[in-house]
Amino acid sequence: MASLREAVSVIDEKLSLADKAAILVEALPYIRRFSGTTVVVKYGGNAIAEGDGGSRDETLESFAQDIVLLHSVGLRPVVVHGGGPQIDSLLTRLGIASEFHEGLRVTTAETLEVVKMVLLGQVNPSIVAQLNRLGSRGIGISGADAQLVRCTPVSDHHGLVGAVSQVNAEVLHRLLDDGFIPVVASIATDESGQVYNVNADHVASAVASALHAEKLVYLTNIEGLRLNVDDPTSLVRSIGAEELRDLLRQGTIVGGMIPKIRSALEAVDGGVRAIHLLDGRATHALLVEIFTDIGIGTMIHA
Amino acid sequence: MASLREAVSVIDEKLSLADKAAILVEALPYIRRFSGTTVVVKYGGNAIAEGDGGSRDETLESFAQDIVLLHSVGLRPVVVHGGGPQIDSLLTRLGIASEFHEGLRVTTAETLEVVKMVLLGQVNPSIVAQLNRLGSRGIGISGADAQLVRCTPVSDHHGLVGAVSQVNAEVLHRLLDDGFIPVVASIATDESGQVYNVNADHVASAVASALHAEKLVYLTNIEGLRLNVDDPTSLVRSIGAEELRDLLRQGTIVGGMIPKIRSALEAVDGGVRAIHLLDGRATHALLVEIFTDIGIGTMIHA
Amino acid sequence: MASLREAVSVIDEKLSLADKAAILVEALPYIRRFSGTTVVVKYGGNAIAEGDGGSRDETLESFAQDIVLLHSVGLRPVVVHGGGPQIDSLLTRLGIASEFHEGLRVTTAETLEVVKMVLLGQVNPSIVAQLNRLGSRGIGISGADAQLVRCTPVSDHHGLVGAVSQVNAEVLHRLLDDGFIPVVASIATDESGQVYNVNADHVASAVASALHAEKLVYLTNIEGLRLNVDDPTSLVRSIGAEELRDLLRQGTIVGGMIPKIRSALEAVDGGVRAIHLLDGRATHALLVEIFTDIGIGTMIHA
Amino acid sequence: MASLREAVSVIDEKLSLADKAAILVEALPYIRRFSGTTVVVKYGGNAIAEGDGGSRDETLESFAQDIVLLHSVGLRPVVVHGGGPQIDSLLTRLGIASEFHEGLRVTTAETLEVVKMVLLGQVNPSIVAQLNRLGSRGIGISGADAQLVRCTPVSDHHGLVGAVSQVNAEVLHRLLDDGFIPVVASIATDESGQVYNVNADHVASAVASALHAEKLVYLTNIEGLRLNVDDPTSLVRSIGAEELRDLLRQGTIVGGMIPKIRSALEAVDGGVRAIHLLDGRATHALLVEIFTDIGIGTMIHA
Amino acid sequence: MASLREAVSVIDEKLSLADKAAILVEALPYIRRFSGTTVVVKYGGNAIAEGDGGSRDETLESFAQDIVLLHSVGLRPVVVHGGGPQIDSLLTRLGIASEFHEGLRVTTAETLEVVKMVLLGQVNPSIVAQLNRLGSRGIGISGADAQLVRCTPVSDHHGLVGAVSQVNAEVLHRLLDDGFIPVVASIATDESGQVYNVNADHVASAVASALHAEKLVYLTNIEGLRLNVDDPTSLVRSIGAEELRDLLRQGTIVGGMIPKIRSALEAVDGGVRAIHLLDGRATHALLVEIFTDIGIGTMIHA
Amino acid sequence: MASLREAVSVIDEKLSLADKAAILVEALPYIRRFSGTTVVVKYGGNAIAEGDGGSRDETLESFAQDIVLLHSVGLRPVVVHGGGPQIDSLLTRLGIASEFHEGLRVTTAETLEVVKMVLLGQVNPSIVAQLNRLGSRGIGISGADAQLVRCTPVSDHHGLVGAVSQVNAEVLHRLLDDGFIPVVASIATDESGQVYNVNADHVASAVASALHAEKLVYLTNIEGLRLNVDDPTSLVRSIGAEELRDLLRQGTIVGGMIPKIRSALEAVDGGVRAIHLLDGRATHALLVEIFTDIGIGTMIHA
Repeated sequence: MASLREAVSVIDEKLSLADKAAILVEALPYIRRFSGTTVVVKYGGNAIAEGDGGSRDETLESFAQDIVLLHSVGLRPVVVHGGGPQIDSLLTRLGIASEFHEGLRVTTAETLEVVKMVLLGQVNPSIVAQLNRLGSRGIGISGADAQLVRCTPVSDHHGLVGAVSQVNAEVLHRLLDDGFIPVVASIATDESGQVYNVNADHVASAVASALHAEKLVYLTNIEGLRLNVDDPTSLVRSIGAEELRDLLRQGTIVGGMIPKIRSALEAVDGGVRAIHLLDGRATHALLVEIFTDIGIGTMIHA
Repeated sequence: MASLREAVSVIDEKLSLADKAAILVEALPYIRRFSGTTVVVKYGGNAIAEGDGGSRDETLESFAQDIVLLHSVGLRPVVVHGGGPQIDSLLTRLGIASEFHEGLRVTTAETLEVVKMVLLGQVNPSIVAQLNRLGSRGIGISGADAQLVRCTPVSDHHGLVGAVSQVNAEVLHRLLDDGFIPVVASIATDESGQVYNVNADHVASAVASALHAEKLVYLTNIEGLRLNVDDPTSLVRSIGAEELRDLLRQGTIVGGMIPKIRSALEAVDGGVRAIHLLDGRATHALLVEIFTDIGIGTMIHA
Repeated sequence: MASLREAVSVIDEKLSLADKAAILVEALPYIRRFSGTTVVVKYGGNAIAEGDGGSRDETLESFAQDIVLLHSVGLRPVVVHGGGPQIDSLLTRLGIASEFHEGLRVTTAETLEVVKMVLLGQVNPSIVAQLNRLGSRGIGISGADAQLVRCTPVSDHHGLVGAVSQVNAEVLHRLLDDGFIPVVASIATDESGQVYNVNADHVASAVASALHAEKLVYLTNIEGLRLNVDDPTSLVRSIGAEELRDLLRQGTIVGGMIPKIRSALEAVDGGVRAIHLLDGRATHALLVEIFTDIGIGTMIHA
Repeated sequence: MASLREAVSVIDEKLSLADKAAILVEALPYIRRFSGTTVVVKYGGNAIAEGDGGSRDETLESFAQDIVLLHSVGLRPVVVHGGGPQIDSLLTRLGIASEFHEGLRVTTAETLEVVKMVLLGQVNPSIVAQLNRLGSRGIGISGADAQLVRCTPVSDHHGLVGAVSQVNAEVLHRLLDDGFIPVVASIATDESGQVYNVNADHVASAVASALHAEKLVYLTNIEGLRLNVDDPTSLVRSIGAEELRDLLRQGTIVGGMIPKIRSALEAVDGGVRAIHLLDGRATHALLVEIFTDIGIGTMIHA
Repeated sequence: MASLREAVSVIDEKLSLADKAAILVEALPYIRRFSGTTVVVKYGGNAIAEGDGGSRDETLESFAQDIVLLHSVGLRPVVVHGGGPQIDSLLTRLGIASEFHEGLRVTTAETLEVVKMVLLGQVNPSIVAQLNRLGSRGIGISGADAQLVRCTPVSDHHGLVGAVSQVNAEVLHRLLDDGFIPVVASIATDESGQVYNVNADHVASAVASALHAEKLVYLTNIEGLRLNVDDPTSLVRSIGAEELRDLLRQGTIVGGMIPKIRSALEAVDGGVRAIHLLDGRATHALLVEIFTDIGIGTMIHA
Repeated sequence: MASLREAVSVIDEKLSLADKAAILVEALPYIRRFSGTTVVVKYGGNAIAEGDGGSRDETLESFAQDIVLLHSVGLRPVVVHGGGPQIDSLLTRLGIASEFHEGLRVTTAETLEVVKMVLLGQVNPSIVAQLNRLGSRGIGISGADAQLVRCTPVSDHHGLVGAVSQVNAEVLHRLLDDGFIPVVASIATDESGQVYNVNADHVASAVASALHAEKLVYLTNIEGLRLNVDDPTSLVRSIGAEELRDLLRQGTIVGGMIPKIRSALEAVDGGVRAIHLLDGRATHALLVEIFTDIGIGTMIHA
């Protein structure tokens, strides 16, 4: 964290002792309150993809620092990820055509091999490597490991695309008890052991419910939920699940936000206390959201 | 902590998200590092006495908040206190004359009764009450409880004034393991069970050594150690034990600072990592010293 | 215990081997039965006050020996004490007038300071010192330590006199598990953290109920409950709670015995198996009552 | 224990409260001191044999009460027994001649069958039954169970008579930890699994050494060790191992006492603190010896 | 097991690697499934008696090997035995007449002494010795040890013959947890501690029920249950409890098989999963029955 | 395992009860002996590659069954794998040229991406899926997870090819303690967190040493070590490490066998008891080797 510590020292000079005391008095009760609780963080493929070259590394590094710091003060973080853009890229490279049906990628056996290579061989080890560079013990697994995530096919038209039917929470509890930080790739298996491609937002939601997580955080490349997508002032700071369901019914929520909101609402139903939509590109967004009074992005509560 | 949280919210406005992130990134590694370690804090009778009326309460309240916050994030704080000024006050009220010999109060059986009433019946319960008002489990004990501190007479001339000969660390470990915050009054017993008046700085030093404490903090009513008492710019920020011993030998250290420095050096010899002299009247001095890069007062290290 | 062992050796000579065998066969099943159970003993301020000079020490020493012996064979003793006579004495010495209302001392802030100094600075450390002289680990605490005893004001007329509303049994269980013998001074705090003077008989009863104690023993300066105060032959040996309630209603019980009996009945309601009123001035009364077939004083049972 | 409790109540009347207090103050420190320690008691075949009819039962019942009371206050008693007179009786009944060589019974395969039937089928279950009648969990085993006692042949002339070579202490520790009172019959096996007849005094001594017992008690039908067998006033109350070895060398100790004293000295060498020779016919001799200042019989110490 | 290993090596040559692989693949799931479960084995007096000289030893040795191997791979075997033929033999030798009433031996005090000597002094140590020769820790106990088996008299006409009324399963669980293999002789005690002779089949059944055993195996000298005693082809391989009850009612089951079947049905009612009747004279019958697909003898299931 | 169980039933018919008994008696002591021990199995890329279509699945299925059966009877298996042939295939498909230097693949950043995709995204999940289909909890990790395997570059000429410098055994112990079967892909990281391609034989050897494994098994596509590669009769059944070192020095061992033998010898030096070279294509080779007296392939011992 050398470069960051330097940046801190610059900022430090403008902060008085009283400023620091005030922030500590603000943060310590949150640290106490959340110590021992589980936080599931969905790290988006978009966030990874967007930042390219140097900027990508910075975003991932800031994210990894936040996860390691949360872990160091006693929280139990679990990272879930997908990798849509990276899958597109390898499919193109291998000359494999890919089709979408009702917003989901139709997944043939050939496509699935690419999905596995990207999620397990590219994205997952990148996140794990970044965590471990900071001295932690990140461990990459997928929903197919240790029978962690079970699924059923979503439809007859989508091929090997699964819908999560069960999460074996004990597997993650054991890894967390052992001091590991699990990084979970969004694939799953059905009863017969066949591997499926599953939506990472859904996996994150199901994992958070199964773990009785305190928080589920979606790190994305948008600021949060807007009532009017084009109007930055329509950002929703905090909203109850019931009101959100009304917005869904009324058609106020549109496009790619719909499945994300549905996953969030399922997590509320599953007992997760709060779901956050944060812009993962903002430096240390996760840390500030969890440990200070500042509310960033959108919080959804029961 | 209502009023303080309000104050925080005022300060909050001038701090950006990035400021807060920077301070958290600065503080969390300290929190991680000191979690589980023991910190012994000598809370001075002078600090209590000086602040009178409202101001006294504020100092004690800020001190108690710091102790409770340290405890809440996993440190094991132990408070040690004396009560010189308050003893003077009750002796006067009861019309008992008190004599000093080589800087120590000659303690008769009658004086000792007053010492016990003040330390155990006034000062100790005041500190405990303040801690418990914040929801913690402060427990007042003295060196005579559970055979915690054993002493021998300091001389033939001082009556019931004892020098610490042994501290039963297990007693404090058990109380800390049970989630209590021990507040220790500076009295002790000899082999026969006779109670003695002992110097609180020495008790704090001996307790810190016995507990293998990470830190021993003397909260006083001065800014720290000055090479020239009258020159604020001569404040020593950090000093090694060897250099400090030289200063003692050379006569640079004078007056009431001599026994305090001697106690600090004994703690260094006893294995305590760092001894701090802090001005207890500065709000949250303890918290800022322990959890940030800012150095306040004087730090003595091995 | 040197002097006592000598006394024993004198008595020993008149006792045959068969006598000793008989007493052991009598006592061992009681030791087995009560091992691991909790016994709360209220040690009365009167008992302490009455014996003055040498005789006081002897009574306290015999009491302390009994407590330490009970502890050594596996019982979990808790001592509760007040200090009425000693409070009177210091109030007089400090020239503070004290008023009684409906049998309870009206307690101003000034009086409370005296109460704390006497209970915490005089009586409590005296008992603790005597226990520790015998090699045990007595630990003096008060109801204000670790949020042990919570209270509410008894009335608008009594000032800082509290009625016990809750006892945090876990605090005492932890101290007992750690091998300490808790000695509890009868003060308490309300929700705001304000300290109150509370009746020691009530504290003992509430503590015994909260701990699910096997026995609650009131050591006083009288022989037990008499149906006719002036008639020694009217001593009640054993009585059920229902019958005792009838006596209370009929007005047979009078004077200072009324609150003590009420406390005892509350302990029966709280699940304590047996309450004993014993004359604390009789040597080793506690030991003989608990470990032999001899019934001393008055036993109240459910 | 009904009849005994009646007897106690008669004796009770002549004992004052002070007498009882004195005995309790005497006994409780012993109970504390010996709680958790192991006591091995050799119960002699002679003691069983001698008392015939009613008197035998009484001796055995008093012995069983003592063992159960020791166990009830936290000691870990182990009983070891032989059965010489009973073996003689069955051999006679079955018309089997038996020969002695150098004081030891020459043991053929046929004799061994009788030894096993008597020790395992008669004596052992009698002792166990008496213990269990008092509500304890006596468990009869032999040195051949669970590879408890290993032996080698004593000589070419004695047939299946073994000398103890090893005791598997863990077996007894586990049974004691489980709350059982082991009653051990004096047979053993060699490396090949062959069963042997072994001397019960030796088994008791080897068991006591292996268990690091606090005490080894030989309950016999004599008062203790006399320097002159015919002179009751020559009874030795207490003697060191070295002095005892001198007496052996000088020939002061004669007859059947020789092997018993040798076993006792081996136990001293094996780390047993004290060996007692007591008259098992005296009621509750065991209890009085262990829990009071009265010394009965002969004590041998290191 | 030297001789057996030699035998194995001979057989080995005719078995291919594929044969061995197949048997391992067959056996390992059984080993996994039964690991940690309890198996109660009734070892019949007839089996012991019949094989005389060399052949007896071989049967017992094969049996002991099976028990030790079961134990070595994690099962918890308990052996129960009687000893009818051996009792007859000693009664004859001692010239004691013995009478039967309704198929049960009328047991006088004199007869009981013989029963105890035979079961505890002959049969039990023989089985234990054989187990221990193989390196295990067999421990011989009876229903009278540690209050294991309680009984009531079966009738006014049978004297000291008891019917099992209760089994203290915890005693056996502790011995099994300690790594012992319990070998239980079929005697029991009534409430007063009086010892009784009880039927070993009934003891085995009651023990299996109390332990919630997975299996109860009767090792006898017959092949299993035949519908027609004289017709080997009428052997029942597997039968449900209800059907078996019908056979009992219809009188198809006759003679000595009746009480055995009744015991088996009681075990089914007591929650034992499967009861097996096996010919104990077939080498390793127990091992093959438990760990392979081969069904030997008769299996009774719920 | 349905199809296999059918095959078993066919073989079963030709095996008598005595055959089965003999094999059980042979296998159970091995099961007992190896229960709780760790076995590291290197599953070769060649074995996977060679069997294509149906035959590949069968080999992998037989291998997975063996691992699951070993695990089910208490062993702690760890699988290590590489994937050379599969890497070649994807490199070709992506049109990336690959160069070898001194027998090792020169690994550029581009090649490494392919290595990761193949090992983590193809081979590892294939093995895990097969294990989990049988109901176990296989978990796929790599040497880059949780800082499991640390390496340094092998040379300046090979790019990102690493030599194992350290294995963090605790990571695998925790996974094994949690009931997982770890499947380890052969990549590692250096101090800076950079990922490297490492030889799977070396990883297996280093993992076995770090875990103090009982056995290290190399499953390959050859029968074992031959002194003369072309002469099947020169197969070495069993060889000591010293003799093997001589063969290496003398040049008897040639080609691809050299690095494998070097890895094996390092495992012997690291404390592994036995190293086996087995033909992974033989059905259940692993099971038969571990649990029977049959020796397959080549065993190397200290």
